[in-house]
Amino acid sequence: MNICIVGLGLLGGSLSLGLKSVYSDIFIRGVETSEENARKALELGIADQVVSFETGVRNSELVILATPVDIMTKQIVEALDLLQENAILTDLGSTKEKLCKAADQHPERHRYVAAHPIAGTENSGPDAAFSSLLKHKMMIICDRENSDPGAVQRLEDLFRTLEMRIIYMNSIEHDRHIAYVSHLSHISSFALGSTVLDKERDERSIFAMAGSGFSSTVRLAKSSPDMWAPIFSQNQKNVSEALDAYIKKLQYFKQIIDENDLSGSYILMKEANEIRRVLQGLSKGETE
Amino acid sequence: MNICIVGLGLLGGSLSLGLKSVYSDIFIRGVETSEENARKALELGIADQVVSFETGVRNSELVILATPVDIMTKQIVEALDLLQENAILTDLGSTKEKLCKAADQHPERHRYVAAHPIAGTENSGPDAAFSSLLKHKMMIICDRENSDPGAVQRLEDLFRTLEMRIIYMNSIEHDRHIAYVSHLSHISSFALGSTVLDKERDERSIFAMAGSGFSSTVRLAKSSPDMWAPIFSQNQKNVSEALDAYIKKLQYFKQIIDENDLSGSYILMKEANEIRRVLQGLSKGETE
Repeated sequence: MNICIVGLGLLGGSLSLGLKSVYSDIFIRGVETSEENARKALELGIADQVVSFETGVRNSELVILATPVDIMTKQIVEALDLLQENAILTDLGSTKEKLCKAADQHPERHRYVAAHPIAGTENSGPDAAFSSLLKHKMMIICDRENSDPGAVQRLEDLFRTLEMRIIYMNSIEHDRHIAYVSHLSHISSFALGSTVLDKERDERSIFAMAGSGFSSTVRLAKSSPDMWAPIFSQNQKNVSEALDAYIKKLQYFKQIIDENDLSGSYILMKEANEIRRVLQGLSKGETE
Repeated sequence: MNICIVGLGLLGGSLSLGLKSVYSDIFIRGVETSEENARKALELGIADQVVSFETGVRNSELVILATPVDIMTKQIVEALDLLQENAILTDLGSTKEKLCKAADQHPERHRYVAAHPIAGTENSGPDAAFSSLLKHKMMIICDRENSDPGAVQRLEDLFRTLEMRIIYMNSIEHDRHIAYVSHLSHISSFALGSTVLDKERDERSIFAMAGSGFSSTVRLAKSSPDMWAPIFSQNQKNVSEALDAYIKKLQYFKQIIDENDLSGSYILMKEANEIRRVLQGLSKGETE
């Protein structure tokens, strides 16, 4: 099997290692703009060869885009221009509406399958990649009706060999939902890290008192700006709406605290405790 | 050794189990208002006997308060009234200024040692207690100069048998710092959980897309309102200031997103990435 992976970071690298762990007859052409990451990807066996975008796309039966979503938007069109006959194009982007819109204009649209794996860590680059990242995770396929059914089938078979669960969604609905359950938690974490770091300038010893609760809440603040700045830009409307709702909730919480309204504070937290039900459902191996 | 633990929840219960795992000659009198928790604490071996507050305090050489901080504020004074000769009083509260102020008025103030272990989980009650919770964690002793040096020494020896690290801090400084590294992350998490749960009312399937990034950021939203409402009330001024700084940071982030200012967004996240340095320092076993 000839596969081209464009972007040899955490997701592209982990997908490659995952596929190599189940398929013996697989050849991965990697496309990577960073020379250092290209070198590492070859060392780590993520790519068998590092080639140009054009060479990679022209010579593969499956092309997987794993670059930041702004770059991906251009690459979808470029790849559809270059794809060999019967080849398939997919992507692993965290936004879907703009990517699908970009593809919809193209006569070869049906050969593109829009996908988003609910998998990742706060780390990035080929060093962060590991073969089991996608195992048992969810793969969301968007606007399936605009893709060639045979292409969708071939990709699903591939994802299922990685023991992924597949669900289908409209790309607009995907972006609206993901703003709340993924993009917003990254912003809340980036902002928390930044706020406490600002405070540290006056209060040197502040982190001596931090524990695992803080670590857990602020973990996503380690995430890559190269990946996330384009995501917030592409999902601007939904992220802004989610962030607005979050800020209003915090302002209400602050009001309750300023008024020393213990029962109001108690009720708000009791409602938030309901998240336990949700997290129990998630504690079965999905990661973001 | 005769010890009285007032409040047989996560912290009081874990301290009891920790001490029982290193001392054979120890008798724990537990004080617990919830009948169900009292029964469980006896079943789990957290308390050897459940008694009234007065009986517990009068018959112990060490009294440890592990109740919500508003109740604790009254109990400190009541306990100092009842303490037997040479007995010591301490607490495990997450705020310190108001507790110390309450004790400072008492003629027996020197027999109280204000302590805060940087240890805990999002779970509560005796069922959540485990003997290693405090192991290798930090114990912050506040306003040491107002306590009898012999009492401080005896307590430190006890905490060190649990392999805890001890630091000293002024109670006012403690509350100012802990608002940022503990209380604020709980609020950000409660508010995130509540915001996404609100959204779920219109978007049923929303949590199908959540992964471990969301789980990590929202984990503290499972924490007990009975414990946290009094903490936010007692540390009102500092929590409100920290929350205000956090809201301003989020408003700035929203502005950047609304203006589609990719470089501004990139810079803010790059600054927040600095938290990696801090978390590496914390990844040595402390928990909150």
